[in-house]
Amino acid sequence: MEKKSKKVVCIGAVALGSKAACRLKRLEPDADVTLIDKDEFISYGGCGIPYYISGDVSELTELQTTSFHMKRDQKFFHDVKGIKVLAGTEATRIDRDSKRVFYKNKDEEGSIDYDLLVIGTGSTPRKLDIPGAELSNVHYVSNLHDASAVKDMMIKGEAGEAVIVGCGFIGLELAEALTDMWGVETSMVETCPQIMPGFVGKTFADLAMNHMAENGVTFYLGEKVESFEVDRHVTGVVTNKRTVPADLVIVAVGITPNTSLAKQAGLEIDSKGGIVVNEFMETSDPNIFAGGDCIQVKNLVSGKPAYYPLGSLANRQGRVIGTNLALAGNAGEKGKDSLEGAVGSFVVKLFERSLAGAGLTLDTAIKEGFDAVSVKMAQLDRAHFLPDKEMMFLELVVEKTTRKVLGIQGFGVMGDAVVGRINAVAGLIAKNAVVSDISNLELAYSPPFSTAMDIVNALGNTAENFLDENYVPIELEELTELWNSREEIREKVCFLDCRELDNAKSFLEKFPNDWINIPQGEIRKRIEEVPKDKMIYILCNTGVRAYEAQISLRSRGLENSRVLEGGIALWKNAGRDIIAQD
Amino acid sequence: MEKKSKKVVCIGAVALGSKAACRLKRLEPDADVTLIDKDEFISYGGCGIPYYISGDVSELTELQTTSFHMKRDQKFFHDVKGIKVLAGTEATRIDRDSKRVFYKNKDEEGSIDYDLLVIGTGSTPRKLDIPGAELSNVHYVSNLHDASAVKDMMIKGEAGEAVIVGCGFIGLELAEALTDMWGVETSMVETCPQIMPGFVGKTFADLAMNHMAENGVTFYLGEKVESFEVDRHVTGVVTNKRTVPADLVIVAVGITPNTSLAKQAGLEIDSKGGIVVNEFMETSDPNIFAGGDCIQVKNLVSGKPAYYPLGSLANRQGRVIGTNLALAGNAGEKGKDSLEGAVGSFVVKLFERSLAGAGLTLDTAIKEGFDAVSVKMAQLDRAHFLPDKEMMFLELVVEKTTRKVLGIQGFGVMGDAVVGRINAVAGLIAKNAVVSDISNLELAYSPPFSTAMDIVNALGNTAENFLDENYVPIELEELTELWNSREEIREKVCFLDCRELDNAKSFLEKFPNDWINIPQGEIRKRIEEVPKDKMIYILCNTGVRAYEAQISLRSRGLENSRVLEGGIALWKNAGRDIIAQD
Repeated sequence: MEKKSKKVVCIGAVALGSKAACRLKRLEPDADVTLIDKDEFISYGGCGIPYYISGDVSELTELQTTSFHMKRDQKFFHDVKGIKVLAGTEATRIDRDSKRVFYKNKDEEGSIDYDLLVIGTGSTPRKLDIPGAELSNVHYVSNLHDASAVKDMMIKGEAGEAVIVGCGFIGLELAEALTDMWGVETSMVETCPQIMPGFVGKTFADLAMNHMAENGVTFYLGEKVESFEVDRHVTGVVTNKRTVPADLVIVAVGITPNTSLAKQAGLEIDSKGGIVVNEFMETSDPNIFAGGDCIQVKNLVSGKPAYYPLGSLANRQGRVIGTNLALAGNAGEKGKDSLEGAVGSFVVKLFERSLAGAGLTLDTAIKEGFDAVSVKMAQLDRAHFLPDKEMMFLELVVEKTTRKVLGIQGFGVMGDAVVGRINAVAGLIAKNAVVSDISNLELAYSPPFSTAMDIVNALGNTAENFLDENYVPIELEELTELWNSREEIREKVCFLDCRELDNAKSFLEKFPNDWINIPQGEIRKRIEEVPKDKMIYILCNTGVRAYEAQISLRSRGLENSRVLEGGIALWKNAGRDIIAQD
Repeated sequence: MEKKSKKVVCIGAVALGSKAACRLKRLEPDADVTLIDKDEFISYGGCGIPYYISGDVSELTELQTTSFHMKRDQKFFHDVKGIKVLAGTEATRIDRDSKRVFYKNKDEEGSIDYDLLVIGTGSTPRKLDIPGAELSNVHYVSNLHDASAVKDMMIKGEAGEAVIVGCGFIGLELAEALTDMWGVETSMVETCPQIMPGFVGKTFADLAMNHMAENGVTFYLGEKVESFEVDRHVTGVVTNKRTVPADLVIVAVGITPNTSLAKQAGLEIDSKGGIVVNEFMETSDPNIFAGGDCIQVKNLVSGKPAYYPLGSLANRQGRVIGTNLALAGNAGEKGKDSLEGAVGSFVVKLFERSLAGAGLTLDTAIKEGFDAVSVKMAQLDRAHFLPDKEMMFLELVVEKTTRKVLGIQGFGVMGDAVVGRINAVAGLIAKNAVVSDISNLELAYSPPFSTAMDIVNALGNTAENFLDENYVPIELEELTELWNSREEIREKVCFLDCRELDNAKSFLEKFPNDWINIPQGEIRKRIEEVPKDKMIYILCNTGVRAYEAQISLRSRGLENSRVLEGGIALWKNAGRDIIAQD
């Protein structure tokens, strides 16, 4: 045979490298492929770690097996995939001139030639630069070693109180794992004034936080960890405001891409610290591909470089790389696979609720320079006449001038239903959807799954009504502030509850000076009862009737009103209970 | 005031007319709007009828109430919406020259002027032209009167045996309602050789039918109802093959658009029988809009007229009409709302399974002239290491030459998860997606909701592998035929089970001459055991390992193999159990 088989080396063998290697071998069984990883554990599902710690997954090996129960270890890659693996082996240097990777492990130092190289070196959790951070009960839970150590503490009952530093995905998932299964008293500390900063706005963060608080997790927001109390182990976490006792500390304050090898090799690195790749996942050296947690990804909404360290993206990128590795050197490289970028879709399950999103939050959109606005809504996720329906909350972020959809966030009880909506919209965000695309999005309808006008359509409708100035809402935060200072501003404002009397009764009794009730259906005929000289804040359970009430008021010349978006349902679920309700 | 308020008349007040009227009144509170409906029941959720009959919905009025428990009757429309309603009133003629609608009811005949008219006359169930079809125990269940009559029979225990004619949505939903809650022995008769003809292909129809059969529903496919046995009531349904005893007959053999008024008025009607409208929902008379079950809709995949009588579309169309009614007559009519067409997304819950789809089936695509192919797959819907995961089945229909996505169908246990996938793809089908868009679709990932490569991505991957001829599958139907004639073709074919021995054992014992087992991981070293001169049909649980096995065989020069798509999971779930398994 004339053609020499292609030599491909992949540095990193968790998600990206393994996927690229396997895809290549499927397309080109003759390819000579080697995976190098500094860990002994390879090709595992890191996203499953919280479920291993919670006990949903009983054995660590389950995170390393295929869906047909084969352990994805060196032997598996060799025997089943025909791929060589150097595990426990660190790649120390890339020589692009000689096309060679140098490595070392406990037995030897050596080097390996490549025709094509894949960098999937992943990321490293950010450390806290505080004395004590190196002690054995401080964990980062970014790999199976750490996961195993934390679970051991659980099983032995060594952790009565845990402090988790950082309220992103991993921190929140771990808080559920510790609390729900093991009954550990868990506190979370976050420097930002909300949980999930950058992923959702404050209201949706509050929805999620309130639910977690109801499940026993304590939150300290806007606090910075300054030091540890140490008595051989860490015994307490000291913030700028308090000391929280801890038998176990988990630090989950983000990760940084591992790019030292790429830097040393002179590959281009972007301002966010990730390796720069084009849509074919090629680095600045066309013989070197990169993907996974070590690269930058183009945010398809802002068009700017972003960082999305997600196992799902790593897998899709790995497949693209595998395809392009197979095509490399072929005539014209026709049919190269590509990934333009990402909108950053995510979902996280938190006890009995789920939080999901895609694209930009309102804050991020404004920071990125968009003239952005958002609308929020509450609606049942399926037909109201069926017994099993749940309230879902959605927020849509749009650009005012172009009506382009910039982002969506959702929260609700039925996780599959929430993430289904987010995915439907995310796909369109990537295709430059405008609000009317959401308003008229064709979602399959049947009463057990949706309403005739699905909540997604209603969300689009709401955004249109807002942009067209037919609907003038007020946000939860602003109304909460007004409500809290109601005694001082009583002359200027009126809180109009347009639900039926039965629903409003307890409020009327508790707040006789601040709460008035006119059911929405009676507003036309009871218009005289509405004060004409005040700003009217209209409330109902979800915002729908309050919107109708606003239209009625306006048609009678009362122009100064605002509707609480998401209604009392949002107020209540975000933990702003103004009155005890059963 | 100079400007006279706009006079708008809507004929039909179920979904379309009510929605259009309410939207208009929100935008233009002064508009003079009248709804005319021949029934006394208006603005009800007809899609909820099966759930009323099943008992999930206890009172008929629940289908007429808003989500905040107000009954949507004449008084509601008048008091709350400021809309006049002529219920129990039939529109008898439209005079376009004088812009007037003539009507009659039990008290009077009259007429009403309009500036703008909306036709939402809905549809009528197709009747069986058979003696006895008019008897009181033969129902069509297309309105609340019929729904009430059937439920009365259930409550009184008057139906021990029911026959449902027609295996579309409504028939299937009603079969569940009768069987699950009321224990009625229910048989279904369908002239086509499968259930849900036109909505899914035969394999997916079999998945759903098998599940319903397991729940006690009996199916007679490919049989035509020829007559009824009558003894005062209908007592039996006579097909070309048998007589099925019946205390209750429900006919659900489709519906036809109600277009006689539109025809009489000289409006354009299309070949499928629906009123022709443009994307603004305007009929051939620009002063007359139409929507809902009485119109044709453009199929966005084929570009041809189609008929989608769905409550969800009617609502979206109604809102578009409402917006455009408000804009009509304004300067330039800037900002007119529009609906280009539909891809026909649907979902139906059948006992503990759900069936959903969008776009074209393979058969329909071929009939429409596309050079279409499809791939099917089985995969877990969430991380395999978590306890609560379920098998999901998906089929993707694509155009071979352009790789355009023409349709998707899905079946599974977790209905929200199935319909979420269908919706995500449906939105892209409407935007002319190609297969690589599905392969790289960004779906939110977290182990409780998905796998790192979601089943949708895997479906796209499979389609790409098929189109690139890396993956050579065989369909369930074809393999079933081959298997059934295995004794005659033993010399030419081999059934290779590439699961682990434990899984294959019972097959090996029962079919020693026809079943061979080499676990996928051992194929490379046991290649000599694979017969070289036969066509190899490779099986595993889902098709994934069989695909890997096919690649291994091909790399060793064995080119003649085919993989059972969807694997033994699909074979089994479609009711083709070849061996009893626990």
